[in-house]
Amino acid sequence: MSANKLVLHPQRYFSSNSEERKIADHLYHSVKDLPLLCPHGHVDPRLFAENAPFPDPTELLIIPDHYLFRMLYSQGVPMESMGVPRRDGGATEADHRRIWQIVADHMHLFRGTPTGMWLKHELYEVLGVRKRLCRETAMEIYDQISAALAQPENLPRAMFERFNIQVLSTTDSPIDTLAPHQAIRQSGWAGRIIPAFRPDNVTDLMAADWRQNIDRLSELSGEECTSYRGYIRALEKRRAFFKTMGATSTDHGVLTPFTVELSEAKAAALFTKALQGQADAEDSRLFTGHMLMEMARMSVEDGLTMQIHPGVLRNHNEAIFAKFGPDKGCDIPIAVDFTHDLKPLLNRFGNEPGLTLVIFTIDETTYSRELAPLAGHYPAMKLGPAWWFLDSREAMLRFRRTTTETAGFYNTVGFIDDTRAFPSIPARHDLARRLDCRYLAELTAEHVIDLDEAEELAVDLAYNLAKKNYKF
Amino acid sequence: MSANKLVLHPQRYFSSNSEERKIADHLYHSVKDLPLLCPHGHVDPRLFAENAPFPDPTELLIIPDHYLFRMLYSQGVPMESMGVPRRDGGATEADHRRIWQIVADHMHLFRGTPTGMWLKHELYEVLGVRKRLCRETAMEIYDQISAALAQPENLPRAMFERFNIQVLSTTDSPIDTLAPHQAIRQSGWAGRIIPAFRPDNVTDLMAADWRQNIDRLSELSGEECTSYRGYIRALEKRRAFFKTMGATSTDHGVLTPFTVELSEAKAAALFTKALQGQADAEDSRLFTGHMLMEMARMSVEDGLTMQIHPGVLRNHNEAIFAKFGPDKGCDIPIAVDFTHDLKPLLNRFGNEPGLTLVIFTIDETTYSRELAPLAGHYPAMKLGPAWWFLDSREAMLRFRRTTTETAGFYNTVGFIDDTRAFPSIPARHDLARRLDCRYLAELTAEHVIDLDEAEELAVDLAYNLAKKNYKF
Amino acid sequence: MSANKLVLHPQRYFSSNSEERKIADHLYHSVKDLPLLCPHGHVDPRLFAENAPFPDPTELLIIPDHYLFRMLYSQGVPMESMGVPRRDGGATEADHRRIWQIVADHMHLFRGTPTGMWLKHELYEVLGVRKRLCRETAMEIYDQISAALAQPENLPRAMFERFNIQVLSTTDSPIDTLAPHQAIRQSGWAGRIIPAFRPDNVTDLMAADWRQNIDRLSELSGEECTSYRGYIRALEKRRAFFKTMGATSTDHGVLTPFTVELSEAKAAALFTKALQGQADAEDSRLFTGHMLMEMARMSVEDGLTMQIHPGVLRNHNEAIFAKFGPDKGCDIPIAVDFTHDLKPLLNRFGNEPGLTLVIFTIDETTYSRELAPLAGHYPAMKLGPAWWFLDSREAMLRFRRTTTETAGFYNTVGFIDDTRAFPSIPARHDLARRLDCRYLAELTAEHVIDLDEAEELAVDLAYNLAKKNYKF
Repeated sequence: MSANKLVLHPQRYFSSNSEERKIADHLYHSVKDLPLLCPHGHVDPRLFAENAPFPDPTELLIIPDHYLFRMLYSQGVPMESMGVPRRDGGATEADHRRIWQIVADHMHLFRGTPTGMWLKHELYEVLGVRKRLCRETAMEIYDQISAALAQPENLPRAMFERFNIQVLSTTDSPIDTLAPHQAIRQSGWAGRIIPAFRPDNVTDLMAADWRQNIDRLSELSGEECTSYRGYIRALEKRRAFFKTMGATSTDHGVLTPFTVELSEAKAAALFTKALQGQADAEDSRLFTGHMLMEMARMSVEDGLTMQIHPGVLRNHNEAIFAKFGPDKGCDIPIAVDFTHDLKPLLNRFGNEPGLTLVIFTIDETTYSRELAPLAGHYPAMKLGPAWWFLDSREAMLRFRRTTTETAGFYNTVGFIDDTRAFPSIPARHDLARRLDCRYLAELTAEHVIDLDEAEELAVDLAYNLAKKNYKF
Repeated sequence: MSANKLVLHPQRYFSSNSEERKIADHLYHSVKDLPLLCPHGHVDPRLFAENAPFPDPTELLIIPDHYLFRMLYSQGVPMESMGVPRRDGGATEADHRRIWQIVADHMHLFRGTPTGMWLKHELYEVLGVRKRLCRETAMEIYDQISAALAQPENLPRAMFERFNIQVLSTTDSPIDTLAPHQAIRQSGWAGRIIPAFRPDNVTDLMAADWRQNIDRLSELSGEECTSYRGYIRALEKRRAFFKTMGATSTDHGVLTPFTVELSEAKAAALFTKALQGQADAEDSRLFTGHMLMEMARMSVEDGLTMQIHPGVLRNHNEAIFAKFGPDKGCDIPIAVDFTHDLKPLLNRFGNEPGLTLVIFTIDETTYSRELAPLAGHYPAMKLGPAWWFLDSREAMLRFRRTTTETAGFYNTVGFIDDTRAFPSIPARHDLARRLDCRYLAELTAEHVIDLDEAEELAVDLAYNLAKKNYKF
Repeated sequence: MSANKLVLHPQRYFSSNSEERKIADHLYHSVKDLPLLCPHGHVDPRLFAENAPFPDPTELLIIPDHYLFRMLYSQGVPMESMGVPRRDGGATEADHRRIWQIVADHMHLFRGTPTGMWLKHELYEVLGVRKRLCRETAMEIYDQISAALAQPENLPRAMFERFNIQVLSTTDSPIDTLAPHQAIRQSGWAGRIIPAFRPDNVTDLMAADWRQNIDRLSELSGEECTSYRGYIRALEKRRAFFKTMGATSTDHGVLTPFTVELSEAKAAALFTKALQGQADAEDSRLFTGHMLMEMARMSVEDGLTMQIHPGVLRNHNEAIFAKFGPDKGCDIPIAVDFTHDLKPLLNRFGNEPGLTLVIFTIDETTYSRELAPLAGHYPAMKLGPAWWFLDSREAMLRFRRTTTETAGFYNTVGFIDDTRAFPSIPARHDLARRLDCRYLAELTAEHVIDLDEAEELAVDLAYNLAKKNYKF
């Protein structure tokens, strides 16, 4: 490697065509400092309730990021050596310097990946590092970051302000008390950190601990969930509570976007069967499909924006799941059929002007075939941005290329970072803003749109659409 | 917005790379004035039989274009306010100026969409408008167009000639008398407007009014369609009649491209069951699959080019269908399996040198996986161009990128506008010609083909391939 | 056509953007002369055992290339007129000059296709032709090549050396004696031509002649394949024999990548049923899925890299198959579900550090949705390069664009030519190297990676990754 100098080119990720680059740069400068709206993510709210210094670089940048250890694992680096905690409490690497070194030794794996781009941004922009992370520089950079983390400007709340975050939504279970959110409010700190209502662990009959979760739901809601009606009332009450805590949206992670309208009697029978521990996979599928309908009904009533994140087969690698638990990089997408699966829900609620239904996918084949045609017709439906593996430079461009012509820009909802790695937030938004500006610059240079239209769109995509669709 | 000036850049839609742009421009100038061949579309032939002035701008540009009101509806604009007629005769907006204003207010929705590109072309090139359509300019432009429509050069036949249309094929049912086509012939006007034979409403057992359609088929053909044999003879006779009226092709809109060879006894039994009102969905599926085979057989015999347009779930939004009827922007594509579904038909007729079978899709995933490999092997099979939602700037490029390497250019059939909006015809052909020239320019600049090859291809794609494959 | 001059531009296939072109050119010069590694292909080893002069241009360039006659057939040129031998021994064109002329007459069909690009490279670089092949030049070029083939530098072994091939792997059945490979070794010639173990004709119960193949397997292995255990031992022994002949890999062509772990009793029962001629399609599906598991187990034990090539419906055109046999251009891809189908195999062996499992596809939809996420997690799994119809200029770029961000570059295995047309080998590698350099140049110009990273990657993609993953 050359001088091991870390350089972030100011015009990175724009087209190398000089005409397009110039326009992209112009557009980017009009949006790069807009506040960040984070309508959906997985940052732990306790971070801001406690506002303690980040312990060390590994804790800050490596441990919460399964994108990182996933790639190293794929090249034969054991999970244990990266400090991933074992379910059985068995030994894993505890020396954070050693973990940092291992990651540094493998930085070449991230060439051309979003993880690589985000990490460079975090090191350079957030933490002031000016050398490339690699075998030789690992310890020097570790020390530099350690020192930085001791500074007040790197406390979680200070970072939040430094990142210019206007709203940050976490994702929370109905049986969560939202204690950290309450603590933040009571602290007097003005940072707007709100919950999102994600009921999968009480609506998916196959969820781990479903039965206990239902008891907890009864307890927290004050509604007896021994009947289907009580269960529905409990969910309604928890949604109302989440709204009082600032929530503006719900989220639903489902294997497929299958929806179905069951009679109350049928739904109640499935629920009772599940309470008795006798529900099978097909019961669960039907009940989940029915509960998506119920959730849409509640959203029509209470105005919470509804998000559906389907199409991921979780914990594909059973040995890793058994040893390390969920969210370890072994969730694999599957093909999805939105046209048929969403038909019942869209027929019942898709024409509702008050509903905002945001659909995500990791199956790109559905962009031009299904999602853009659906979003370009149903008033309630909007397209979530390129998600998860597709939240990346090439894939975000493909998202625009395959959805804009049929759904337009205005049936999309802006950028959503969906991250659990807090310091990656500005990096992710910056990448998305750069890519949208690049796409708009291309349309402008090719005389598809005029410059003033591109200027308006740049701000809409970076800020206004998220604000509107998530009711911030 | 700046000065609200409408500018159509002469090099729009070409690459912004100067080398490619220059070649694209050179190629485009060699094809832009070639006559238009329109082998498949939905323009109403009565337009030319009557040759009455277009009543007003809204009637000309908005009402026949479900692309337009589809997008506005997706953003919460009621169908009624756009003047879409209700099935029950209930109230809808009757003031065409007000409808025009609503559309103008929402022009930003069409940024980056083909609808936006076509509309700009129509306004500028066909109607002489020089201001951008928007809230402020709506009424001024309405008046300008109204005045223009009163001029003789904007009568339908004059437009047809002005557009330099060499052949325009409509799409017609076997139970249509083709009276407007006859009237056009008898009028002595030389415009070549021909029918295409589209028998879906008598071959799909589930079609609305199928039973009455069969009676009408008996009547028009003089063959008793009370038996399967009579029905087949009736179809053969209607095809023969269409040929005398100039038809060179048939068209088949089917949910899937499933084909199957049934025995005559089996087919006859299904037909009888349907006559008795007892056919179910599976019967219909089998019969439709069998009738595609029969239609291919007839095409081998009578030489009509056969088109299949599969993969669209019609009227996905049942409330809209109930209130406003079909073709209201709520048809949604589904995934298609050509490899298996077309196998029986291609095995029986795909090696026939006399057959031309043109396959369309809106499921892009099949381009490189199925359609290009099939068209690159079977002599009878050709690829229709990017269709419907894919008839757009980005998607046309993807069509070439994913089909050319395996099927070559010469297994495609040129551009097909498939429009019901008459004034959009030159806009659509112009966009397609620009994009093909752009793609050829890219291949030339990257030294994949030589300039003389690109020049020959440009003319073949713009004109010769349609002429050959549709036997004009 | 202009002067009919054949020119191969030195910067062909690079981006026409001058900045990217310059970087691509720089990278390409660092890899263009690296030795060729050919880990998987279908060149006949007897070519090198015999080392006889190629008989004539048609025999060299046309007859072994079903890409060529496939395209001509699709445009109505009969197979017989291209000299494709008939199974029944019936008449086909025997005049090789006439066949050459027919192909030359149709060269326009190959514009923009990889076949066209490869052929130009072969003519220019391998055979010294300087005129474009077309109707007028056909015979002159035929004579020129005929003369060249008489020269010692165009003998097969001389070509092998001239092409700078370091290793060439053929693909061979377990019931092949590998006599030509033995002959090559015994000849004292240093060219490294090794076999790969492809057991489809004994693991697919529906394979033609399966029963006789099993007898032959018994004979060659010295293990009685009248029992399942004997059959497994026989396969293990044949693998061991292939290893002694230099094999480093196995290959498995299957309709789907379905895998399943059967009990030994169940597998044995299916095997016995097949021996009795009573296995049906479902038995075969299960047994094939089980044998993929067994093959993975053996690879864990003996270290052979395991390749799976799924998703092709062979011999789609039954009339052509009946008349001319397999590999005649009528194999058509189908949609594949890797996420579910590979789950059993990856769960059992995917975490094995010693296993290298290379997965190929012709269903591009799986790149970003399934294959990159799987390869970016499981240590054993790697992505094979763009294959068959996708081994082409546009499709190779799509491969990088849709896999790199999630799987990285280092979970891919370099280029694999998979050809039966020997003189196309340098052409294919050159195209792949150019395209990889182009992609890296784009990343560099857009500041995604630095130039020194691109330089390292260029060599890794062109040489090191194949060397490592195929254990050369």
